[in-house]
Amino acid sequence: MTHWVRFRSESGQLGFGIRSGDEIHEHRGELFDAPEPTGARFSVAQVAPLAPCVPSKVVALWNNFHALAAKLGKAAPSHPLYLIKPGSSVIGEREQIRRPRSYGGKIAFEGELGIVIGRTCCDVSPEDSEACIFGYTCVNDVTAIGVMNENPDFVQWCRAKGYDTFCCLGPVIATRLDWRAANLVTRLDGTERQRYALADMIFSPAELVSRISHDMSLLPGDVIACGTSLGVGSIPDGSSVEVSIDGIGSLLNRLGPGAAPNAPSA
Amino acid sequence: MTHWVRFRSESGQLGFGIRSGDEIHEHRGELFDAPEPTGARFSVAQVAPLAPCVPSKVVALWNNFHALAAKLGKAAPSHPLYLIKPGSSVIGEREQIRRPRSYGGKIAFEGELGIVIGRTCCDVSPEDSEACIFGYTCVNDVTAIGVMNENPDFVQWCRAKGYDTFCCLGPVIATRLDWRAANLVTRLDGTERQRYALADMIFSPAELVSRISHDMSLLPGDVIACGTSLGVGSIPDGSSVEVSIDGIGSLLNRLGPGAAPNAPSA
Repeated sequence: MTHWVRFRSESGQLGFGIRSGDEIHEHRGELFDAPEPTGARFSVAQVAPLAPCVPSKVVALWNNFHALAAKLGKAAPSHPLYLIKPGSSVIGEREQIRRPRSYGGKIAFEGELGIVIGRTCCDVSPEDSEACIFGYTCVNDVTAIGVMNENPDFVQWCRAKGYDTFCCLGPVIATRLDWRAANLVTRLDGTERQRYALADMIFSPAELVSRISHDMSLLPGDVIACGTSLGVGSIPDGSSVEVSIDGIGSLLNRLGPGAAPNAPSA
Repeated sequence: MTHWVRFRSESGQLGFGIRSGDEIHEHRGELFDAPEPTGARFSVAQVAPLAPCVPSKVVALWNNFHALAAKLGKAAPSHPLYLIKPGSSVIGEREQIRRPRSYGGKIAFEGELGIVIGRTCCDVSPEDSEACIFGYTCVNDVTAIGVMNENPDFVQWCRAKGYDTFCCLGPVIATRLDWRAANLVTRLDGTERQRYALADMIFSPAELVSRISHDMSLLPGDVIACGTSLGVGSIPDGSSVEVSIDGIGSLLNRLGPGAAPNAPSA
């Protein structure tokens, strides 16, 4: 398994590479097209982490776990149900979730597995879709709960989930993850709030990529957020949310009161 | 008023410039950052038109015209209601709308005004938002009607409107358009099907940009599709849809049976 990261160095340069323990082995070229080591090494503590990819879109699933569907009394869907979170909503590990200026209501966390696409795919079969997956990351699919049903005629999925900083990704992209054996855990200020087996997914990653690629072309760096399960809750201002997946690591973000999107939370 | 276009030349090069009559005066640099003339001129007939911008996202409004709201019996919303169409759905003038392989149902046209954003904007006031608008274009917000309500628990806006080729933009970006005085007309195989005054909009372009910029950062080239009005209908396979707006021109696209996304329709 390889752990890819993106970062900003102390001198302000953007870089990417493979994380190994406390070190990053910098690479050059294209992340999704055979990048090569530069030879440079950075200490993880020296650099600012960034979202590990720059998606053109994030396809975010609803109702993709059996346990949550059962609790909500919903049937398993016959095709993935999703909305789109824009690229402008993405932040990385330790960047701050920012409360929208115009919104004082509940903001929820949703810990999810993220599939990172490695090559352009359109109308791919389930057999071929595995090869389109570069790796996996943790997602906190942040949601302004009060916005969703504000209008009785139209559920505002894209608005409620599309605010700047409402798509936390990271800390790494893990290749060759055995997601079937992995659990996802979400902690709010250190207290466990979600723990579920990724194997409970209704549509597996390969099925999701195949099905969604029949709806729209998926591009390198695009992310499919696989949906959440039981235990979603709201984030008090100033609280931290940590989404952890076995084999990937922990993605920690704090909800700030409206600071600049890239301000560090610590 | 200036008409900006993007195109692919006979030699396959991408270019952009100002259209004046049947000629394009090519420019270089960034479209949204003081581009300069190269001195080269192309005949419009010589080049293949492309969508006039490359949006990172298309914010597509629902219920933004008084006449349609009245017909549907819906109250005017207190905030713009929208979904997101991905950049992968965008095509330009004369490119072919492609029927999804997996879908045999009704495909609808929706003629709309498109706002093209010229600068990054976040939390802008209605007074300042006008300056964020680079210009306007025609939009055909194509929709797979049968997909939208396929699942009883979740209206699939993003999927139904997000297929590749389902966001037709063009033929130009018109700067300094007097949209209040303009009509939009949609013709299906030459027969008029929609005719409405853009002045009937519930949220004006400046209001839309201001309000939506409080939800998410809008980036140069992003498009806000202002919503449609009366007369939406389905497109038989092989038929052409022409969306015309006074001062912008006509955007014509044909619904093909599933050809390659960029195949010419003629």
